[in-house]
Amino acid sequence: MTVQALQWTGDALKVLDQRQLPEKIIYDEYSDAAGVTEAIASMRVRGAPAIGIAAAYGVVLSVMRHYSAGADSWRQQVAADIDKLAHSRPTAVNLFWALDRMKAVLNQPQADPLAAALACAEKIHADDIAANHAMGELGADILTGAKGIMTHCNAGALATGGYGTALGVIRSVYRRRPVSVYAGETRPWLQGARLTVWELAQDGIPATLIADSAAAWLMKSGAIDWIVVGADRIAANGDAANKIGTYSLAVLARQHGVKLMVAAPTSTIDWSIENGSNIEIEQRNPNELLAPCYIKDDSLVSAWNPVFDVTPAELISAIVTERGIVLNPSEHGVGSLKHADK
Amino acid sequence: MTVQALQWTGDALKVLDQRQLPEKIIYDEYSDAAGVTEAIASMRVRGAPAIGIAAAYGVVLSVMRHYSAGADSWRQQVAADIDKLAHSRPTAVNLFWALDRMKAVLNQPQADPLAAALACAEKIHADDIAANHAMGELGADILTGAKGIMTHCNAGALATGGYGTALGVIRSVYRRRPVSVYAGETRPWLQGARLTVWELAQDGIPATLIADSAAAWLMKSGAIDWIVVGADRIAANGDAANKIGTYSLAVLARQHGVKLMVAAPTSTIDWSIENGSNIEIEQRNPNELLAPCYIKDDSLVSAWNPVFDVTPAELISAIVTERGIVLNPSEHGVGSLKHADK
Repeated sequence: MTVQALQWTGDALKVLDQRQLPEKIIYDEYSDAAGVTEAIASMRVRGAPAIGIAAAYGVVLSVMRHYSAGADSWRQQVAADIDKLAHSRPTAVNLFWALDRMKAVLNQPQADPLAAALACAEKIHADDIAANHAMGELGADILTGAKGIMTHCNAGALATGGYGTALGVIRSVYRRRPVSVYAGETRPWLQGARLTVWELAQDGIPATLIADSAAAWLMKSGAIDWIVVGADRIAANGDAANKIGTYSLAVLARQHGVKLMVAAPTSTIDWSIENGSNIEIEQRNPNELLAPCYIKDDSLVSAWNPVFDVTPAELISAIVTERGIVLNPSEHGVGSLKHADK
Repeated sequence: MTVQALQWTGDALKVLDQRQLPEKIIYDEYSDAAGVTEAIASMRVRGAPAIGIAAAYGVVLSVMRHYSAGADSWRQQVAADIDKLAHSRPTAVNLFWALDRMKAVLNQPQADPLAAALACAEKIHADDIAANHAMGELGADILTGAKGIMTHCNAGALATGGYGTALGVIRSVYRRRPVSVYAGETRPWLQGARLTVWELAQDGIPATLIADSAAAWLMKSGAIDWIVVGADRIAANGDAANKIGTYSLAVLARQHGVKLMVAAPTSTIDWSIENGSNIEIEQRNPNELLAPCYIKDDSLVSAWNPVFDVTPAELISAIVTERGIVLNPSEHGVGSLKHADK
């Protein structure tokens, strides 16, 4: 059992505050949708699949509050909460996907809307964990023979319902035989340094941390043959948005004969967009990068803080989903996964 | 007058503690060579030219102590101090170049060895500042028309006797006309975030900070056409060792049609080595990257912390020195600078 980012208590959502890791393990408990919205916006919970699951439980909390209170206007109030949840963060498509599923359930006639909403959220959560295990095995099949694997950001248990996408693949590889695992720090939020190596160590998997800018030098040394990352949104042509720095790794990998695998559930695929140029890239507060003395009105020091970038399909060797694998997605996109058996 | 990393007081060396910047401006005063050795090893002073200048003054302090004390064995004691200074850090060749110059002066018959040593150290210091101004103008001539320039680490006044190498070029460009300046944070020590943007702001030059891993995305946006960096050691074929991440930027720049300029005084050229594979790359303490909770005996989390890398000459568009410029150094190396007029 891997560490859990999210726990449903029956009447509240417990969220592991990932801003405090690895020094402190603190769960905050939320009993309304506004709290869950804030937990997502403030990055207490992060990672595309985990954001989707949290939002689904946020809708359950909204139904619990408004439907159970017997208010006639409960549907409008839940819709308003869903709208707020949808505006918590812009890039991960799993958020919108999960909210759409919750809306669809609530739009059907239900004897007990609360029970139906909860069943849907729990299924989203359980399906995500199952998808990660499936992806882990599929990805590990490809990585047979890899000597060293690098990952970026945290696409682990902490970013999902459990087990992880990229880290799920690494877990499955490691179960078969030991392999050297490297993690980039992942500035500015240090998901690699604070979350990924911590999470792997919890599972007994040794990991070596590097500065993000040391990745090219590591590749030149010959230490790694694959980079495995998650994704926040994948376009129909296979272009993949992921944590800032993924595009950099993809370009560098191609130049060094290192291959790039993107592991993500099909809920991360945005069928509505043809290519990555249509993906909104979240710009976070420049103050995440600036020392306090630079933060003043007439400062000459500013910062540019996009927290995602888009890796073109041409630079991706394999996209691994719970429904199967697409090798060299630039050839035909990821359309073959759309109607594949779940 | 730019900020000064080093100030000679007449009987001591004042060193700006760069570990405290930008929040605190604190000068420490050293009156012996052991103190200067420690100031270099602990990175209170850093940057290849500044390390060389500091070491030269360290030798002066050694002569002051041992020769002035009238000890017969002063030459052995100074030689022992020089040996310690030489082991303070391994990669920057300016350190060994400056110590060799000081040794050569002391090996000649001198009526007053202390006066001769001080004159040599002060000349090394003054020549470095003059070299930086010369490089600044030469580099600016090439950058005519650049819209955006990125730099990495700190190759500024703080890394030199004054004015800076890469930042000297940027200062000279900016004096002619405003240009957008971007600086990478430069993990793990954050020289870009703590030193470069601070130093530029002191001079009224606006700068935008980015996470190191955002550089590729910045290049893709079309915002920059040149990257300008310093160097810690340049081999005879033009391969250049510089702060970790420079090689990464060089590979990414080539893929995006961005050009790379290396600005360094000829004291940075190590004529004794044919190419960059002979440059010793300093590995610093992994704890610079690790959260406290990972630092324990049986930790599964380790770190790989090389603080320099080597950029092959093929990826460098121009090497700018005080003696002149070499375009496309991979064609003929940098030998043309060896006997060029100073």
